[in-house]
Amino acid sequence: MSILVMKFGGTSVATTDRIRRAAKRVAREVANGHDVIVIVSAMAGETNKLVGYVNDIAPFYDAREYDAVVSSGENVTAGLMALQLQEMEIPARSWQGWQVPLLTTSAHGAARIEDVPTHNILQKFAEGMKVAVIAGFQGISPEGRITTLGRGGSDTSAVAFAAAFDAVRCDIYTDVDGVYTTDPRICARTRRLDRIAFEEMLELASLGAKVLQTRSVELAMRYNVKLRVLSSFEDGEGETTTGTLVCAEEDIVESNVVAGVAFSRDEAKMTLISVADRPGIAAAIFGPLSEAGVNVDMIVQNIAEGGRTDMTFSCPVDQVKRAERAMNEAKAAGGIDFHDLIADTEVAKVSVVGIGMRSHAGVAATMFKALAAENVNIKVITTSEIKISVLIDRKYMELAVQALHDAFGLDRAA
Amino acid sequence: MSILVMKFGGTSVATTDRIRRAAKRVAREVANGHDVIVIVSAMAGETNKLVGYVNDIAPFYDAREYDAVVSSGENVTAGLMALQLQEMEIPARSWQGWQVPLLTTSAHGAARIEDVPTHNILQKFAEGMKVAVIAGFQGISPEGRITTLGRGGSDTSAVAFAAAFDAVRCDIYTDVDGVYTTDPRICARTRRLDRIAFEEMLELASLGAKVLQTRSVELAMRYNVKLRVLSSFEDGEGETTTGTLVCAEEDIVESNVVAGVAFSRDEAKMTLISVADRPGIAAAIFGPLSEAGVNVDMIVQNIAEGGRTDMTFSCPVDQVKRAERAMNEAKAAGGIDFHDLIADTEVAKVSVVGIGMRSHAGVAATMFKALAAENVNIKVITTSEIKISVLIDRKYMELAVQALHDAFGLDRAA
Repeated sequence: MSILVMKFGGTSVATTDRIRRAAKRVAREVANGHDVIVIVSAMAGETNKLVGYVNDIAPFYDAREYDAVVSSGENVTAGLMALQLQEMEIPARSWQGWQVPLLTTSAHGAARIEDVPTHNILQKFAEGMKVAVIAGFQGISPEGRITTLGRGGSDTSAVAFAAAFDAVRCDIYTDVDGVYTTDPRICARTRRLDRIAFEEMLELASLGAKVLQTRSVELAMRYNVKLRVLSSFEDGEGETTTGTLVCAEEDIVESNVVAGVAFSRDEAKMTLISVADRPGIAAAIFGPLSEAGVNVDMIVQNIAEGGRTDMTFSCPVDQVKRAERAMNEAKAAGGIDFHDLIADTEVAKVSVVGIGMRSHAGVAATMFKALAAENVNIKVITTSEIKISVLIDRKYMELAVQALHDAFGLDRAA
Repeated sequence: MSILVMKFGGTSVATTDRIRRAAKRVAREVANGHDVIVIVSAMAGETNKLVGYVNDIAPFYDAREYDAVVSSGENVTAGLMALQLQEMEIPARSWQGWQVPLLTTSAHGAARIEDVPTHNILQKFAEGMKVAVIAGFQGISPEGRITTLGRGGSDTSAVAFAAAFDAVRCDIYTDVDGVYTTDPRICARTRRLDRIAFEEMLELASLGAKVLQTRSVELAMRYNVKLRVLSSFEDGEGETTTGTLVCAEEDIVESNVVAGVAFSRDEAKMTLISVADRPGIAAAIFGPLSEAGVNVDMIVQNIAEGGRTDMTFSCPVDQVKRAERAMNEAKAAGGIDFHDLIADTEVAKVSVVGIGMRSHAGVAATMFKALAAENVNIKVITTSEIKISVLIDRKYMELAVQALHDAFGLDRAA
């Protein structure tokens, strides 16, 4: 018995007609001899509607009730998908998170999966059931309350099931047909990657490529789950050759030095001017920011002069107010001393990612030269082993992405 | 500690603003010193939308999946109501059916409540929680699947909780401000009843008055739960004197002989012409109808002549095709023999109901005289101890309701 996990995102189950088309794909895999675990998201728009209700009623909500409300969309799709499969004479039933039960931590709104017991579902497969349809995005806490895994969490549900059931593959059906060298809406010459390494996908996902939830890639990497991203909107033959396979580095024979260009529009750059420098000052700054729920991304500390230094960091633009409050409170409490706090809310982050960087020198030089040729000024730079990111003025973002896509020859396969 | 149960129907929680208004009523009862159990329906229109999805995908659906889908609307409202109460600084949390757990039979789509364990909720009340918000309409089967209690089932949830927790009262908030002598849309002189006996309410509910689910009244009668029907759309003072109290007969000091006039528009009259009469023929007819899911209401058998008889019964108009198929199949199988089957789909049922009938003669005579005076022809008559029902041409229905309302003086209190 080989188990295949198939996950359908919100646009792939947006209407009963789309659910029907998704079910046909499932039927094809059943015909191929698989027992299938289907993970479904809520119908497109439903979760946003529910989040809207919650925010309307309680902007500072109890996350346990938030989870109880926003998880309901997946339950609807799971039941409908099971019904559709039954209509096609395929033995199927639905499971809600608490029925599996998919056990998570109590971190409501962003719970982590602790265990996916396989007994119940394996027994049904043994009894002749062909498809288990699972409401994605949701689980149950040790206290018996419903939890959710964060936006995009159905991807993580899918990978967790693939790992727990030792699935042959985890197919993520979405509204794009794979992972591209960059966003086709920004760059006309973009190209779909046949394969991409977990590490690269992880960087791309963290950097704002919305195709997969970051945690799902982490999990796939840890358990070596073969993850395939493909479109539920195509209906061609030979479909198994399409899409992008996210896999271990050793499964990729040849690749470009740079796999893709990622970007994130909604960044802000904040600079603490003339901070009194002392050992522990970084902790004194970033402790309060973390407690205030500010997701600090890039950090740059300028050379200190006369015992004072400038500290620059970036964060999502909608967290600027929160960051300012945290810094001013820390200053008032005497934890830090600075002259001024300047927020630049008109910046974007552009990154190049590729495992080939490990063995190729000169990637940074090529990147900076390409940006300089377009007169794009770089405000902040950070690097990792397989990534270089820069903050630039937001108005140059598209120009920068196109220039880098050309500079690294991403329109051509390796 | 006194526990009050408050149930809010779909129109009373149709928007976040309505939920806010309902929460204010709850807050008032908390201020009055009650611990409150709130039962909520889905936001108006939601359940119909979900039922529509199911019918679109699978007209002959698996009732277990149907229940999983259509129960989700109540989960949304329960979470939102808990959040709204918390916003008003009232300690509250939501429970879904399986969390209580509200235990039911496995009769999906129309499950019966087996038990409402009180331990979890009482413990939270003891810890300081003031309001338990329960998703109505739903429970959990012995197999761990979600069940629903049938349309309008949140009323039954509410009464079951009131019985289990020995509540001082069960207030049903809806879009009308009580139980009327008849439907105000049909008769201008209708009057709200201050009190009505369980038995009367039961007949009215069965007869098509949509204000309460029939089973909820049965349950209230069995456990002597004081049931109050009142509007969530009024905001006046002295509200506790409004609405209609559904209570035991002995709590009603004086009442009219007839409490109300009920009607049901969507009836059909079916007549089997010249049925071969023999012992057991009724079972041979109504057995197959029952198996086909036809809800037979009135039954009349004419005097047999020459070993043959005419058998007339009524059923909801949308079950006529099913009834015809069942009868023709039974005929083909040799179970019954008849010459013809005639369906009259243009009939309506009008009934007068009142516990006073037990002690007052002449109610039937008054009824028939009033209808005759308006030239309304009676097609079928059935009676019970506290009710007389007639089938008439549908086009005379409103006329008949008004004539009976006048004839029994229902515009005046006893």
